[in-house]
Amino acid sequence: MHAAHRLEFVMTARKIAQPFPIVTPESDAMKATQTLAAQRLPGLIVCGEDGRPYTILPGSQVLRFLIPSYVQDDPALARALDEDASDELCRKLVHSTVRDLLPKPQDLDDLPVVDADATGLEVAAVMARMHSPLVAVVDERDGNRVIGAITVSHLLDYLLPAQQATQA
Amino acid sequence: MHAAHRLEFVMTARKIAQPFPIVTPESDAMKATQTLAAQRLPGLIVCGEDGRPYTILPGSQVLRFLIPSYVQDDPALARALDEDASDELCRKLVHSTVRDLLPKPQDLDDLPVVDADATGLEVAAVMARMHSPLVAVVDERDGNRVIGAITVSHLLDYLLPAQQATQA
Repeated sequence: MHAAHRLEFVMTARKIAQPFPIVTPESDAMKATQTLAAQRLPGLIVCGEDGRPYTILPGSQVLRFLIPSYVQDDPALARALDEDASDELCRKLVHSTVRDLLPKPQDLDDLPVVDADATGLEVAAVMARMHSPLVAVVDERDGNRVIGAITVSHLLDYLLPAQQATQA
Repeated sequence: MHAAHRLEFVMTARKIAQPFPIVTPESDAMKATQTLAAQRLPGLIVCGEDGRPYTILPGSQVLRFLIPSYVQDDPALARALDEDASDELCRKLVHSTVRDLLPKPQDLDDLPVVDADATGLEVAAVMARMHSPLVAVVDERDGNRVIGAITVSHLLDYLLPAQQATQA
């Protein structure tokens, strides 16, 4: 096998992690959604005031909050909604916090979170098991504070060095 | 409510859709994964030879294919794998096609696919219902060929014009 096709699984999460916007449950829902949209993020990391990860808010969850359940059940009904109805949906976002967007609270154990010293393979295993497009990276030696995040595509870009060489 | 906070739900999927790389079940798995990684995509659209969507391949599914299930069940085991084991995982990708990466076949009805004439709200409803970070946009007037795709963050960027103004 060609060396360029070796997966870089020994890289640690600390090296792969990228800075990532962090919101709290009390953050303004509209501002948080705008951040997600403007930076083309697959989701947001929600931390408590102590900087520890509280949960991950995937982009599709924002849509689940915005779109009435009867429209989710039958998307064709969306065509029947007029501009007033659209305003009404938006008003929900303006007057809400991130806490309102979240699904029911989860245990930390159920979150896609890895320690900074986890290897790339470990990160991949967590994402695979949880079907998650995003993991938060925390530093266990610093009270589990979030130091960044890793998306599936970013991880794969690290794991596949041959492709990086092509890009350079 | 301020006009800038009105959601642009009447925009059609045709206008929002972006060009998106398309692979077929016979595509090389390594090349497909490299495309997903290099372009930072949340997934890939898999089409048949006729250009119709066959399924969506989320990035986390590639990891599910790569990572042995016993490591997915206990990510800490990843630290015990050596470089030879890592090579072995990569070899799976080199000698596979996209078909090998896919979960069991799905019906088109169960796929996150919208017609080009769907409104933004309809697109949002489909993503919300299916928890999908990505929808394929097809043109029903052209044999359901895929004309592009919409990610959650891209859709939200369209739906929130105030944020677009801030960016400009």
